[in-house]
Order: sequence, then C-alpha cells, then structure tokens
Amino acid sequence: MRLMFIGDVVGSPGRKMVKDYLGPLKKKYKPTLTIINGENAAGGRGITEQIYKTFLDAGAQAVTLGNHSWDNREIFEFIDQAPALVRPINYPEGTPGQGYTFIKVNAIEVAVVNVMGRTFMSPNDCPFQAMDTALDDIRKRTPFIFVDMHGEATSEKQAMGWYLDGRVSAIIGTHTHVQTADERILPKGTAYLSDVGMTGPYDGVLGMEREAVVKKFLTNLPVRFEVAKGREQLSGVVIELDPKTGLAKSIERILINEDHPFYF
Amino acid sequence: MRLMFIGDVVGSPGRKMVKDYLGPLKKKYKPTLTIINGENAAGGRGITEQIYKTFLDAGAQAVTLGNHSWDNREIFEFIDQAPALVRPINYPEGTPGQGYTFIKVNAIEVAVVNVMGRTFMSPNDCPFQAMDTALDDIRKRTPFIFVDMHGEATSEKQAMGWYLDGRVSAIIGTHTHVQTADERILPKGTAYLSDVGMTGPYDGVLGMEREAVVKKFLTNLPVRFEVAKGREQLSGVVIELDPKTGLAKSIERILINEDHPFYF
Amino acid sequence: MRLMFIGDVVGSPGRKMVKDYLGPLKKKYKPTLTIINGENAAGGRGITEQIYKTFLDAGAQAVTLGNHSWDNREIFEFIDQAPALVRPINYPEGTPGQGYTFIKVNAIEVAVVNVMGRTFMSPNDCPFQAMDTALDDIRKRTPFIFVDMHGEATSEKQAMGWYLDGRVSAIIGTHTHVQTADERILPKGTAYLSDVGMTGPYDGVLGMEREAVVKKFLTNLPVRFEVAKGREQLSGVVIELDPKTGLAKSIERILINEDHPFYF
Amino acid sequence: MRLMFIGDVVGSPGRKMVKDYLGPLKKKYKPTLTIINGENAAGGRGITEQIYKTFLDAGAQAVTLGNHSWDNREIFEFIDQAPALVRPINYPEGTPGQGYTFIKVNAIEVAVVNVMGRTFMSPNDCPFQAMDTALDDIRKRTPFIFVDMHGEATSEKQAMGWYLDGRVSAIIGTHTHVQTADERILPKGTAYLSDVGMTGPYDGVLGMEREAVVKKFLTNLPVRFEVAKGREQLSGVVIELDPKTGLAKSIERILINEDHPFYF
Ligand SMILES: [Fe+2]
Ligand SMILES: [Fe+2]
Ligand SMILES: [Fe+2]
Ligand SMILES: [Fe+2]
Ligand SMILES: [Fe+2]
Ligand SMILES: [Fe+2]
Ligand SMILES: [Fe+2]
Ligand SMILES: [Fe+2]
Repeated sequence: MRLMFIGDVVGSPGRKMVKDYLGPLKKKYKPTLTIINGENAAGGRGITEQIYKTFLDAGAQAVTLGNHSWDNREIFEFIDQAPALVRPINYPEGTPGQGYTFIKVNAIEVAVVNVMGRTFMSPNDCPFQAMDTALDDIRKRTPFIFVDMHGEATSEKQAMGWYLDGRVSAIIGTHTHVQTADERILPKGTAYLSDVGMTGPYDGVLGMEREAVVKKFLTNLPVRFEVAKGREQLSGVVIELDPKTGLAKSIERILINEDHPFYF
Repeated sequence: MRLMFIGDVVGSPGRKMVKDYLGPLKKKYKPTLTIINGENAAGGRGITEQIYKTFLDAGAQAVTLGNHSWDNREIFEFIDQAPALVRPINYPEGTPGQGYTFIKVNAIEVAVVNVMGRTFMSPNDCPFQAMDTALDDIRKRTPFIFVDMHGEATSEKQAMGWYLDGRVSAIIGTHTHVQTADERILPKGTAYLSDVGMTGPYDGVLGMEREAVVKKFLTNLPVRFEVAKGREQLSGVVIELDPKTGLAKSIERILINEDHPFYF
Repeated sequence: MRLMFIGDVVGSPGRKMVKDYLGPLKKKYKPTLTIINGENAAGGRGITEQIYKTFLDAGAQAVTLGNHSWDNREIFEFIDQAPALVRPINYPEGTPGQGYTFIKVNAIEVAVVNVMGRTFMSPNDCPFQAMDTALDDIRKRTPFIFVDMHGEATSEKQAMGWYLDGRVSAIIGTHTHVQTADERILPKGTAYLSDVGMTGPYDGVLGMEREAVVKKFLTNLPVRFEVAKGREQLSGVVIELDPKTGLAKSIERILINEDHPFYF
Repeated sequence: MRLMFIGDVVGSPGRKMVKDYLGPLKKKYKPTLTIINGENAAGGRGITEQIYKTFLDAGAQAVTLGNHSWDNREIFEFIDQAPALVRPINYPEGTPGQGYTFIKVNAIEVAVVNVMGRTFMSPNDCPFQAMDTALDDIRKRTPFIFVDMHGEATSEKQAMGWYLDGRVSAIIGTHTHVQTADERILPKGTAYLSDVGMTGPYDGVLGMEREAVVKKFLTNLPVRFEVAKGREQLSGVVIELDPKTGLAKSIERILINEDHPFYF
C-alpha cells in the first residue's frame, strides 16, 4: 500500500511536469493512490474544473487545495460536484466543498484530508480541533489516512505532526513551496514531512517571476506576479503503508529538476 | 576553500551535539571556516559569553544570531567585545554589535554576514538595502562572503538568494529550524539553501518540549516553553568555494540524527 | 435602565481612578449596572482576585477581560469561582472561566458578554459564530445584553456592531486604549462605540511608560514596560436602555482627565 | 494661523461631502490651510489626478495619502507633477512622489508631512528615523509642520506623538477610519489626535458595504468590496497654531453626520 503526493502544482509549468512525469513516477513507485495539491494550478491562483479533470486523467485519484482555493472563481461552480477534491477542513461551517474524502482503491478506502494552519495565515477554525472531529468519523471507516497540512509555520506543522502521530498514515506539509528534508516516521507510526515543496518553475520565487517578487520586496510598489518561465521542477513524496494498520513503514522524497535528474 | 555552517543550536542538547560532532565533522569535511548560528544556544533563548567562547573553543571561527539575539541580557555585556559574533545587519543604526565581520583564515579573509527577513517578523530596516550597503564595503576586501539569512518566509529568502546571486559565496537560511532540501548553486555562482535547520532536540517542536507547544496551539493559554529532552540532531551545510572567485562550486547538506547516522 | 462601562483599567493609576471616581460617577449617572474591563488591572497585565473584589466593592457588578486575561497566573485559581467575571467567549472549548454571565439587578437580568477579535490578534474561534451561539442561549433569558468586544481592528468591530444590531443592547469596544468618538445608536437599536478607551495613566503610551515604548519602536531592543506615572484619566460610557425592549435609547461617552475635568 | 484637516475621503460619497461641506467649514473655521487625506478617494482605492485637482479646486491646499497610495495606477502618471500631494515619507528611497511638501500661505510656509506606521502594516523604513531626517530639513525652513500619521496601532501613533512633541505643530492620525476622542495639546505644544476618522459612507464598515465585510469575516470567502451607499459623514479637525512658534494652542474635532448635524 503506497501513497504518492505531488506538491503545489504552479501554473502551466507545473501542469507540464505532472503531464511529463506522473506516468514515469507511477511506473517507478507503483503507488496505490496518487494525490496532487492543485491550489496554484490555474496560473498560480486556484484551480479550474478542466485542470482538476486533467489531474485525474493523468493518473491522480485526489486533489487537495489550500489558501488559494478560491482564487479562481470557477471553483464555486464545480467544487460540490468534485468528489475527489478537498479544500481545508477548518474553513467555517457552510463553506462549499469538503474537507476530506474517501477514495476507494481496490478493496481499500483511503481518506484524503486537507487542513490549514493559522499561524501567519488567515484566521480559520482550529486545525487541531477540526482534525479531532474529522478523525472521529474517518477512523470508523479506514485506518488509511493521508493529511495535507497546508501551513506557513514549521512550529504549527510539527505540532500537528506530533498531535496526529499514530492516528493517521501520513501528514505532509504544503504551502511554503520549498521541500524540507525532515521526512521521518514518527514514533507511533505516522509519516511526516514539513513541506513537500512545489511543482513548477525552478528559477522563480515560489514559482512566480523572480524580478517582480524582488521588486516588491525592494519597493513595496504594486507589481504583477506572473508564473515564471524557464526550467521546471517537480516535488513529491512516496509513503509506504502497512496494509494492516495503515501506519507508515517508510517515506521517501521526490525532487526532479536539472540539479536532480529523474532516474528510473 | 570550504565553509561549514551549523544551524540554530538549541540549548544544552544542541551544544552537546556541537561538542560531540564538530570534531568528527571537521575531520570529515576539512572546512577552512566553520560558522555556528547560536541564537538559541542559551536555554533556547539567546547566547551567553561562555557559550560563545565554547563554540570558538570547539572549532568554530564565527557565530551568527537572529531574532533571539537579545533574549539573554548578558549579550549586551560582551557583544561589543566579540569580534567573531554577528547579529542581523538590518537592525536600526546604533544597535550594539556588528552585522558582519571578517575572519582571517590562512591568508584569506572571509566575510560573515547575518541579515534578517521582515516577512512575518518584526519590522527592521530593509534587508535588501542593508545587503547592498554592506556588500559595497565587503567586496572591496574579499570575494569570500557567507550570508546567514535569518527569516521565516520562503519567498523572502528565495528573493534574497536571487538578489545576491553572483555577489556572495553563499546565502544560507536559518530560523525555521527545519532543514530544507533545496540546496543549489544559483546560475551566477552563489550557493543557496532556504534553511539549514536546527541543532538540538530531535523530538520536540523546533527544539522545545512538544507537549507545551501543542497545548499552546490547542488552548491559547500561557505555557512555559522548555528545551526538549531526549534524542538529538545536528543540521549543517558544507559549501566548496572557488579559491579565485569566491563563488560556490558545490553545496552539501549535513543532517545527523537517529534516522540519519553520521558516517565518516 | 442604564449601563455604565469603564474601559481597560491599567495598573494602580487606573485602580486609583476607579476608587476616586466610581462613586461620583454613579451618583451622577445612576447606572443600574456598572461593568469594568480589568484585563490590565494588575500592573498592566491581567487581574488578581483581590483587584476583582475591589472592583465589586467599589460598586461594579461585572468585570470583563481580554487578550491579557491570563497574564497574571493567579487568575487560574479564582476565575471559576468568580461569577461576575467574564473572559472572551471565543477562546477554545475547555478554557477556564466563562464567556458571559447574568447579573441580576432588581428584578432584571443583564447578560454581560466578552468577545475578542481575531484581526491582528491571536487566532481564536470565530467571534461572530461564538456570538450567534451565545445569543441563542442568552436571549431566552433576557433582552438586556452588554457586549465588550475586545479587538484591535476597527473593521472587525464595526462588522460585529452591524452583525449584532438589534440583537444586543450595546456593543462597546475595548483593547486599543484610545476612546473613539463614533458612539451611536445603530438603526435597529444597538448602542455602539468602537473603543471606550482606557483608565489609568494619561501621559504614557496605552498606559505604559512612554520612554520604554518609544525606545522599543526606535531600537527593537528588549525593554521593560512599566505602568506610567503621573497624571491619570478615566474612560467610560453610559448607555440608556429601553426597559421593555432592552434596546438602547442613548449613549454618552465619559472622559475624565486634566483636559476634561469631571463636572457633577 | 489655523489648519483644517479632513480625514480619509472614501469614494464618491466622501467626495460629495467635501464638495458640500468644505465651503461651509472654511467659512466657519477660517483655516489658513486645508489638507485632505485622499488615499481612498477613487472608489475606495487610491486617487486620480482629476480627484486631486477637485480637492484643490474645492479649497484644499494639500493632499495626503497612505497605504492605498498606489491602488489606482493613474497615480504613477501624475504624482511627480503634483506639488501639493504627499505620500508616506518612509517608503523606500527611490519611491515616486514626495514625503513632505511646503505650502505657502500668505507669507508663511507650512510643511505637510505624511508618514506611515509599521505595526500591523507592511514593512517600510522606520517612521521615527524618517521623521528625524525630515525634520532636520523642514525645521530649517518653517516651524509650521503638519504631520498625517497613517497607522493602525494606537501604540505606534501615541509613541510618535510623544516623539514629535514640541518639534511639529500637529500630528494627526489617519487609516483606522474611526475618529478618536483623544485630541489634546501635548506638554511641549504639539496637537495630537490618534485618528481623525473618515469622510464618506456613514453606514458601512470603514466606508465599504457592510454586507460584504461581514460576509468576509463569517466565511473567509472572496468578496467584492464596494463603497457603501446611503448616508454620509465627514470627519475632520481644526488646529489653532501660535503664529510665532508654530506650536498648537487648541485642537477641535469635526464630525458631521445625521447624528451630529453641522451648525454654523
Ligand atoms: Fe501553494
Ligand atoms: Fe498556499
Ligand atoms: Fe532559531
Ligand atoms: Fe530565529
Ligand atoms: Fe487593555
Ligand atoms: Fe487588550
Ligand atoms: Fe484610509
Ligand atoms: Fe489606510
């Protein structure tokens, strides 16, 4: 039982990497389930129905979001008819979409959860409480639980890792767009990585044109952020689960770019 | 010409790791210059003169700080007599201490700079402008320039990386206490890593007791943060510089913990 | 039916003003109920049981808190035995103390509620949802409802004012320590004031020694904030309620300092 | 010698109030100089050249801005040809426009300065240092100095008030859009008011449609903020200066709305 997760896909360079590498990656790692974070998939801001479907067609079974969930207004038209799409679970009650979903692979159900941090982010419901409530429901159906923790602060992500250790299969961070090197299996069996990193431009700032971002920092003047051109990268992670307990046996980072070529 | 940098040393577990591994690491990597970030060295908060001297005695030649520079008040008594100690350069004019220093190794001078981000941090002078001003001075003396960019936001760190590319030997992030996996040589020759990670407890949250941090997130009640006990880790990076240009030829992360044992 | 509310009492200068003026103010305005915000009453940070009792002895019937609720640890020893003390209602479930209380005056019950904003403040539960839930309960018992909205951002306070208009007797802001001049009766009958201001030193910054605060802004160095000495002020508000509907008929600010002497 | 200042004019309702009341106000108060904060004058976001000229035609002699300076891109086309327009002085060096200007009235020059806080705002240069530098220049030419301190936090505004006391004629806050009631003459002669409040819709949230703002707080979903319709208000202040010293002799708030009708 193996999960593969591809981090924040940014714009067309990110989608190109998914198109080019998802097949080879699936051949190499043979994941039972593949999940993609798509919060920046549409021009760096949000996601469209077509992109969502492209991800499923390309071989993913679930798509997660984050603070950019609503950036492309098209989301409101399809989110409630997108069973494989999850947005942060700790948005206020009544928010469109769902915070977790169950994906059936072979005879097994895997829960895919999206939760968002609050430190240095907008104020949402408590992510820790939201996870407690969700797990009460989820764990009745399956011990195979993947959590995408979309957050800025390493403190909050690590705290969530320890909080969920032994209760979920894996908690993998997104949002900072930089892959961290702290993958590990926590003592009670949960796979943890503070951030999986992003998939898209390799030479931008978080995937956006670097000149604009640098200008913003230097001048505080309004600038237009566009998805960067040029070389690409892909960031992901593969987690091997115990088919009986749903706990993690191993975790391995994936990083593909010119400095880290893909080898089969 | 090789630089070794050890990330945020947290409390006595961090100091123990320095004591135990700095020798073996120096034997293995043979760095020309070793630098330690010591902003959390004294009980997780600040640094004392004795600890500063211990780092030098253990084989480091320079010590950097960060937002915790002033947490231990003893700093004010010795910072102006500590030639190998640097605090963020973009503190307001008149701040005690220095933002960069020159360390002579053999016949070569290496500049060690500490600069702090502003995103999700307290408002200081512009780090980009501060670097411009500093480099005007520094580059007259030496092309060997190490920058510890102490910051929270990956966007600001990456922007600084691109901004300094070709003008410094290396810019290595600190502060998040989580090592990132994005080490690279930027196109104009500067070594870059968003965060080197921390040195200290392996099973805490950023090095502090995890129960207290989780309680804080859950309850918002006042809690007392103590340095965590138990297993330790060490985080670092080694950068090989071109002895003529001062630009980087390679960068390699160091991570030592029970999941990543140290091999000579 | 008249409510009097005294804004954030800061340290001994604030308590002195309560001691000196609460009697004369009660003689002048003849409030049915007097409420004091005491989050800074103990040396600027939190409240003690003795101070809480002093406020009741001086003629107040209820005491509200805010983000400084827990600054003085003594609070945990008496908050659950202090029926007239309320802390922000939108702290996480399980937090000690209560978010609202009912005070009986003559034959009438008045609900006193404390709620805290989230903009520019620590992340708590949604204050709007928390008020909805609380009002479901409160309005079954009484239409006389006083809300102390402890918040930083004028946008959030005004939004809450409009959100509660017609559902509570009055919503009065605290926390900025500066009295605003926007007192009004909203269209559906709720009295509103963005901030009532503070009670304590007249010549400090928010009640603290101004030299220390200015030094903090200038240097970012650690400084010790002490309650300022010298002249004092008192800030308050009086709201006249319709004895049948509980809605507000008038609202009048109180400001006492050397520039605004108290006249009977 | 008398200064009149009209706070943040929001959209067409705000401009209508200026058009309707600036004449009567000038008749009543006979200001030597009238200044308008226009950062929200164009549809709530920024200012256009035409609006700027309308303000001058209506009888103002200077216009100040704030964090919304650049919201309407037209600003970049005329700011450097607008001698009576000032934007925050502590923007980075090289920013278009000017941080202060001198307006000649009769034989006297009055300096008009705009400075922005950093607490809960974007990181700019230190406002305290920027004022020191500016005053070195300004005070050589004139002791008549008006400062619009555009800021969120009452602590930072009060600190600036004390910092500038005796060095400027008046420091009046803007940005929160709520008038405060703390007008005073500080001990060394500077007139101070934490916020003058806004000019525009009376029944919105900071001037914007309240339904949208409340929805934002409730749902965190994207909403479109439009300038509110309906009743209007005008907020201002009049400061009487000593014609010899430039220091303040009196300060009086102006508030015009249905609850506070204008009387000649
Ligand atoms: Fe993202
Ligand atoms: Fe994100
Ligand atoms: Fe640190
Ligand atoms: Fe730090
Ligand atoms: Fe307070
Ligand atoms: Fe407060
Ligand atoms: Fe404004
Ligand atoms: Fe503003």
